[in-house]
Amino acid sequence: MAKNGTESERGPAASGARRAPAGAAVLREDKTAAIRAAVFEELAAVGFARMSIEGIARRAGVGKTAVYRRWRSKLHLVLDVVSAVAAAGLPAPDTGSLRGDVRMVLEVAARALGHPMASQIIPDLLAEAARSPELAEALKAALHDSQEGVAAAVVARAVERGELPADVDPRLALDLLTGPLYWRLLVVRDEVPAGYLDALAGSVTAALGAE
Amino acid sequence: MAKNGTESERGPAASGARRAPAGAAVLREDKTAAIRAAVFEELAAVGFARMSIEGIARRAGVGKTAVYRRWRSKLHLVLDVVSAVAAAGLPAPDTGSLRGDVRMVLEVAARALGHPMASQIIPDLLAEAARSPELAEALKAALHDSQEGVAAAVVARAVERGELPADVDPRLALDLLTGPLYWRLLVVRDEVPAGYLDALAGSVTAALGAE
Repeated sequence: MAKNGTESERGPAASGARRAPAGAAVLREDKTAAIRAAVFEELAAVGFARMSIEGIARRAGVGKTAVYRRWRSKLHLVLDVVSAVAAAGLPAPDTGSLRGDVRMVLEVAARALGHPMASQIIPDLLAEAARSPELAEALKAALHDSQEGVAAAVVARAVERGELPADVDPRLALDLLTGPLYWRLLVVRDEVPAGYLDALAGSVTAALGAE
Repeated sequence: MAKNGTESERGPAASGARRAPAGAAVLREDKTAAIRAAVFEELAAVGFARMSIEGIARRAGVGKTAVYRRWRSKLHLVLDVVSAVAAAGLPAPDTGSLRGDVRMVLEVAARALGHPMASQIIPDLLAEAARSPELAEALKAALHDSQEGVAAAVVARAVERGELPADVDPRLALDLLTGPLYWRLLVVRDEVPAGYLDALAGSVTAALGAE
């Protein structure tokens, strides 16, 4: 992947029927994607504090200029990739029962939080977020707001089915759905033993139904 | 507090009746305490990566030598203060009911995790722990092992009273007791709204009783 950073950014998209807006640089999508992927890899490998634009460019196989043409700083680059994760969101499960939905949410969360890259990147960015309000906002959107919709949908369906009272607090529901796994996987850094997700699903289902 | 780092470490303890062991430096307790306190303040202010022995010594009002006489590196100093927190432990509450005990554990955890110093230091050290197995071990002891005994005692008393079945998994109990608050306070960095701890206590009590 020894792409040259000085090569033209004008790819097929620019030479097609649609003209680029006057004054706007046309940026090659494949380079953008390579840079985004490299950001995640660099964050996992060296962390936010030690990460450099040079390192990202090298890993992406592009020149530094290609990075600076898209993002004006390391922080903006990280904000952008984190926001993209948040915007992608997660579909709310619809298995037909509260316990089934809870089990599915836990399964997806365990897989996401247990991913080696997530377990390197999330603690690192959270530490940095304590000193950067912009990053804190973007991380909150990625970790919390995207999951909030899932928790709200699961609760709303259970209320419709008569499985939960109408006054369940969706914020508390989210804390119960996400907190125990986050604690186990990213704080204590323990594994998820066999049968654990089933037991946790039973516990969280009971917790949601409590007044 | 402009103590001079070159002043003698031989304080009243050394000149008293008890002789210092041959070859062992007698270290002044007040300096040791000042250095320990300074470590927490420096960690909160600048973080582990940017923290220096110079900065700690300056804040403690001692010379660099006084620090190096006690700990051979920044990592060892942090390991030591974190381990001291773990060893201090927390008493398990004994209110006479599972719900009362759970409410008390949540109250103490919310106060500890919500402390501005904890909310700066813990995420920072966790990020560093992803790259330092020694620090990961010490943090796990401070955050997890010290709480594990509390959770186990609360569960054991509830089993004795017949409030819980005998086969409750104490590890799952700890995840349920600590995870939601950790997520809310240190990941999402939200506040604890009025009535939240009561609602969470009800939920966690129900969760523990679930099979």
